[in-house]
Amino acid sequence: MSDLIIKNVGQFFGKGSAPYRGETADKVDIVEADAVLLEDGAVSAFGDFDDLAEGKRDTEVIDASGRLVTPGFVDCHTHAVFGGSRADEFVMRTRGASYLEIFEAGGGILSSVRATREASEEELYESGRRRLVIMITHGTTTIEVKSGYGLDTETELKQLRVARRLADDLPLDIVPTFIGAHAVPPDYKDERDMYVSLVCEEMIPAITEEDLAEYCDVFCDRGAFTIEETERILKAAVDAGLKIRVHADEFESLGAVPLAVEYGAASVDHLAVIIDDDIETLAESDAVATLLPGTTIYLGSGHFAPARKMLDAGCIVAVASDLNPGSCTAASVRTVLSPAAVNLGMTPAELIHGCTANAAFSLDQADAIGTLEIGKKADLCIWNATDVNDLVYRWADPRVYAVIKEGYVIYRDEISIE
Amino acid sequence: MSDLIIKNVGQFFGKGSAPYRGETADKVDIVEADAVLLEDGAVSAFGDFDDLAEGKRDTEVIDASGRLVTPGFVDCHTHAVFGGSRADEFVMRTRGASYLEIFEAGGGILSSVRATREASEEELYESGRRRLVIMITHGTTTIEVKSGYGLDTETELKQLRVARRLADDLPLDIVPTFIGAHAVPPDYKDERDMYVSLVCEEMIPAITEEDLAEYCDVFCDRGAFTIEETERILKAAVDAGLKIRVHADEFESLGAVPLAVEYGAASVDHLAVIIDDDIETLAESDAVATLLPGTTIYLGSGHFAPARKMLDAGCIVAVASDLNPGSCTAASVRTVLSPAAVNLGMTPAELIHGCTANAAFSLDQADAIGTLEIGKKADLCIWNATDVNDLVYRWADPRVYAVIKEGYVIYRDEISIE
Repeated sequence: MSDLIIKNVGQFFGKGSAPYRGETADKVDIVEADAVLLEDGAVSAFGDFDDLAEGKRDTEVIDASGRLVTPGFVDCHTHAVFGGSRADEFVMRTRGASYLEIFEAGGGILSSVRATREASEEELYESGRRRLVIMITHGTTTIEVKSGYGLDTETELKQLRVARRLADDLPLDIVPTFIGAHAVPPDYKDERDMYVSLVCEEMIPAITEEDLAEYCDVFCDRGAFTIEETERILKAAVDAGLKIRVHADEFESLGAVPLAVEYGAASVDHLAVIIDDDIETLAESDAVATLLPGTTIYLGSGHFAPARKMLDAGCIVAVASDLNPGSCTAASVRTVLSPAAVNLGMTPAELIHGCTANAAFSLDQADAIGTLEIGKKADLCIWNATDVNDLVYRWADPRVYAVIKEGYVIYRDEISIE
Repeated sequence: MSDLIIKNVGQFFGKGSAPYRGETADKVDIVEADAVLLEDGAVSAFGDFDDLAEGKRDTEVIDASGRLVTPGFVDCHTHAVFGGSRADEFVMRTRGASYLEIFEAGGGILSSVRATREASEEELYESGRRRLVIMITHGTTTIEVKSGYGLDTETELKQLRVARRLADDLPLDIVPTFIGAHAVPPDYKDERDMYVSLVCEEMIPAITEEDLAEYCDVFCDRGAFTIEETERILKAAVDAGLKIRVHADEFESLGAVPLAVEYGAASVDHLAVIIDDDIETLAESDAVATLLPGTTIYLGSGHFAPARKMLDAGCIVAVASDLNPGSCTAASVRTVLSPAAVNLGMTPAELIHGCTANAAFSLDQADAIGTLEIGKKADLCIWNATDVNDLVYRWADPRVYAVIKEGYVIYRDEISIE
C-alpha cells in the first residue's frame, strides 16, 4: 500500500472519539503540524516534513499550503439509492401545489416506491453511483444510505444489495440502514398492523439473514407511523441485533424522541418541531440530533429545527444532506452548510463537527473516522479555503482541492479555464 | 477562428429578443435540432449533423447526447470585485448578532469599504479572478459587476478598472456598473448632500471620462439613500449618458420602483417588500425585476420577493446571485436556483429565463445573448441534466459538462474518481 505525505498542513483537526456537544461544539481542536504521514490507509504521524519524509523517497507528496485540511465529510442521513425522478412534483410545488394535490397527481413518496420497484438492480446501481460520485467530489468519504422505497421485502432487499455493491465498487464507505417503515404502502393502508408485522416478521429477518443493514430506522410522524407501531418495529429490530435510528418530529411531535432514546437510538433525525422537554431528554442521552436543514430550504417550509437551543442544551448535533428524490435533492452535506448556517444559528465549527465527528459518532464509527488523529482512517479533504469559517462563509465557492480515502487520492478538482 | 459542431443536441432554446413575461415565462421555446454549428463566435446553423459537418473535416465536434443545452447563464447583479472577507461577521450572524451589533464590531458594508480601499489593484484582480473562474465553472458566460466598495473616487475607479482587466483576461463578458451610492461613507455621515454631490459631480464624470461603466446604480432604501438623493443621482447619471439600475425595496418600500421606472431603469433589484401598486407599475414597464433569493436564504430573513405575484402580473423577472462579501456569497446564479425555486414560487423554466433571456434583456444585450438563435453569440452550456426541470430539481447535482464562450470550449468538468 502506498504512503502519502501532506505537507504545509499548518492546521489540522485532532481529537479523541468523544462527540462535540455544548461549548466544545463551537471549538475546533487544532493540531499545528507541518506535515502528516498517511500509511497503510491510516493517519500514522504528524510532524516536520523533513522528518516524516526521511527515507521515503518514493512517497507521494501533496502540498496543502494555504489550504484547509479537514476530516472527510460523513453524511449520516441519505436516501441515495432510489428509482425515478420527482421533477414533475417539484415543478408543481413551485406553483404552490399542496401535499394533497401532489399525492392525488400520483406524486409523493409512493411515486418513488413505484419507480424503485420497477427499476432493475442495474438501473438503481447506475443512478446511485452517479449520486455518490458527486458526493465524493464534494468531500464526502462516508455516507449512510437508507432503503425505504421498496416497502416490500424484495425491493427493500434490492435497494440494500445495491448499496452494498456501491460500497464494494466506490472509494466511499457506506453504512446501510433498513427503513421498511418509511411509509405505509397503499395495498396495506387499511391493514396497517399487517404491514408492521411484515416489517417485523419478514423484512427484518430477511435483512439480517443477508447482513444487509447495520441500522433499522422508522419514520414516526403524522402521516407515517404511530408511536405504538414504531415501538413494535424498534423492539423487533433490537431483538434482531440491529442498531436504531428514528425519523422524528419533522411535522408533529408524537413522542418519538423519548421513545427513541429509551431504545438506545444512535440518532434521532429531523426534529423541526421538537419540544423543549425532548431537547432535555436528548441532551442527557448519547443519541445524536441529526438536523436536515436542506429539506427545510428545499421545501420552503421555513420551519428550521431549533438547533441553537439544542446546542446550548448540550445535545450532540449532526447535520446531513437528507439526499432523497422528494423533499431534498441536495447533492451532498457540503451543499447545505452555507445556506443553513444563519437559518439554524450554527457556527461554521458547529456545522463542520456536525458532518464529521458527530456524524461519525451517530454511525458508531467515532473510533475510526470523523477526526484526524493517529490510528484513525486516512479519510480527509484538502479545501480551497483558509479555515473552517472561510469554508462555510463562502457559499459553494471553496471546492475541494483533493479528497483522500484511506490514504489514496481519489479525486482532485483541477479547474482549468481555456 | 475555429468552428465547433454540437451534435445530438435534441432540444435547444431558440427565441427572438423579447423578454419572457406573463404566461410565456413558464414556457421554454424549444428548437428540435440534431446539431448546431458555431462559426466565428456565433450560432450559425441548426440542422442535421451530416449536413452541417459536410466539408468541415477539421471542425471540433462535441456530443451532447442525453444532455441539456442552454444559453450561457447571465448573472445580472453581482458585486464580484471587492477586498477582504467578512467571515467573522458571518460567524456573528450565526450566533444571532443583530445588524447593529455587527456594525458596532466594525462589520457590515463599511468593513468591505476599508478592505477594498486598502487592497492593491493586483489583490482585487486576483481575488476577483478566483470568483469569476468559479462562476464560469457553474455555466456563467456574462456577468454584471458593480463597484460600490470604494465610496471615494479613487477606489470606485480602481474597482471598475479591475473589472475591465478581468473582462480583458477571462473568457467572460462583464457589464460594469458604477454604484458610488451604495452606502454613505462614515466621513460624510453628517454631510450626506456633500457625498451625493461628490457622486454626481466628481465620480460620474471621472467614470464616464474613462468609459469605465455602462450603468449607474443607487441603493435606495432605509439606511442607504433617500428618494430625493436617488433622484439627484439618477438625473446626473442619465445626463452623463449612463444607463440606470436601482437597488430597491430590500428593507422598506420608499417609492424607489416608480422613480426608477420614471428614469427608464433597465432593472430594479431586490424587491423583497415591493407593494402591489409598484408591481403593476413594473409590469407595465420594460424595467426588469431582478430578484436575489440567495440573499434571503443566506441572511435567514425569510422575506422572499413576491415572485409569483410579479410573474402573474406580467413583470419581466430575472434572477441573479448578488455575489457580495456580506449578504450573499453565492458562487454563482446557478448556486441559488434550486434552493430558491419553491421559496420564490418560480418554475424551473421561469428561473432559467430569469438567468438567461431576461437577465440579458436587463443588460441591454437581448439581441446578442440570453437565447440561442442564428446570429447570436455562441455562448452556451451543456449540462449533465435531461431538461430544464431536471436541472433545477436536482440541487447542485447536475454540473456542466462543457461551457462554450463565443464558440470556444472554455471549461469541461470531467469527473474522474480513482
